[in-house]
Amino acid sequence: MLAEGRNPVKEAVLGNKSIDKIVVEDKIKDTSVRETVRLAREKKIRVEFAPKEALDRLSKTGHHQGIIAVLSDFDYTPLDEVLGGFGRRFFVVLDKVTDPHNLGSVIRSAECAGVSAVIIPERNFALVNETVIRTSMGAISHVKVCKVKNLNDAIKKIKDSGVFVYVADMDGESMYKTNLTGDIAIVVGSEGDGVSSLTKKLADGVISIPMKGKLNSLNASVAAGIIMFEVLRQEG
Amino acid sequence: MLAEGRNPVKEAVLGNKSIDKIVVEDKIKDTSVRETVRLAREKKIRVEFAPKEALDRLSKTGHHQGIIAVLSDFDYTPLDEVLGGFGRRFFVVLDKVTDPHNLGSVIRSAECAGVSAVIIPERNFALVNETVIRTSMGAISHVKVCKVKNLNDAIKKIKDSGVFVYVADMDGESMYKTNLTGDIAIVVGSEGDGVSSLTKKLADGVISIPMKGKLNSLNASVAAGIIMFEVLRQEG
Repeated sequence: MLAEGRNPVKEAVLGNKSIDKIVVEDKIKDTSVRETVRLAREKKIRVEFAPKEALDRLSKTGHHQGIIAVLSDFDYTPLDEVLGGFGRRFFVVLDKVTDPHNLGSVIRSAECAGVSAVIIPERNFALVNETVIRTSMGAISHVKVCKVKNLNDAIKKIKDSGVFVYVADMDGESMYKTNLTGDIAIVVGSEGDGVSSLTKKLADGVISIPMKGKLNSLNASVAAGIIMFEVLRQEG
Repeated sequence: MLAEGRNPVKEAVLGNKSIDKIVVEDKIKDTSVRETVRLAREKKIRVEFAPKEALDRLSKTGHHQGIIAVLSDFDYTPLDEVLGGFGRRFFVVLDKVTDPHNLGSVIRSAECAGVSAVIIPERNFALVNETVIRTSMGAISHVKVCKVKNLNDAIKKIKDSGVFVYVADMDGESMYKTNLTGDIAIVVGSEGDGVSSLTKKLADGVISIPMKGKLNSLNASVAAGIIMFEVLRQEG
């Protein structure tokens, strides 16, 4: 799938679409194109320069304006499929985690912890792109990722399927004192915002990682990793 | 402290010196300078462009060749000071961790886990730079960082001071079955190389995080976080 032209490519980059690479006409001087290239590099998207003829050949619309994004179609798993899966159901739900490095790192840890699926909302989120794939160090091929339209609807569905849902939050009960065995989903929020109060209300409980510092602010992917492995430890 | 001119700045960037920012003459065309700027950006070092007159004013040598690096003098704590410290001694030793994001993230987790000091070798390592400071989210101001010349010498010293030293490695004993209370140091290696066999021999034991995946490769800072919080859990 391609995005062609100044605005579509810029929007794809800004909207955190899954972009394999961006191909740019090598002699282009357009300010908007240069700005998109800068943004893309900031987001660690691969940028290739090529002669105009190469872009003409690649283009499907014939209106590339010197810039084309090659979008990757990541193969998300439907939520229903993982809810009905065999064996123990162990989900990690990420709310408002916008940094693709964090998503990649969570997927990597999830693979190590035997998580059945990582569930992410479609909006306001780092979707699976090349950075996520790279940061996951190959784990993305072994962990199912579900993209859901509405996180709270998804949580209701998860609960209805018999899975206990716990939200990770500073004000929760110590995770060491909470029974995390059996079918379980852990909801981890962004570092800044945490998880919304509605999501907390929907959940079966709120758990925290007891800490000993002054700032007590863990990176979201580290926090997720610590909780996943506490689940694994309790499982024995 | 400044590094001035093409080669000194390039070396500072290549050598992972602690660089606050790089100031570059705004109309410079020099290939070597451009290459250094590219490298610096890759390493997330702040690059500012300024007119020649600004560089002339900033320069201490008068030979800036259009590029100046402002180096930060991070205040490392001497190892002896932390070894003789009051209260429980809980150290995290990082071996060959080259990614400044990982160092920053470990320092951040260390703050949350009440670690007394993070110990890093002087060579082949991500030293404290702006990326580390930024990634640590302020935790760097609350966690002592010791830079040591030789890691194995430092480990001997740590042991001699009565601290138990454990190396984290896949082939170790489960950390859940190891007593991690009391004065303790955890050595975490890079994701690729792990910890050297000499270091493992020097240590009091080798511990592992039991995993359930196929790849079982955790990000170094996530692994360090999981172990730090297992120490905290056992402490109760």
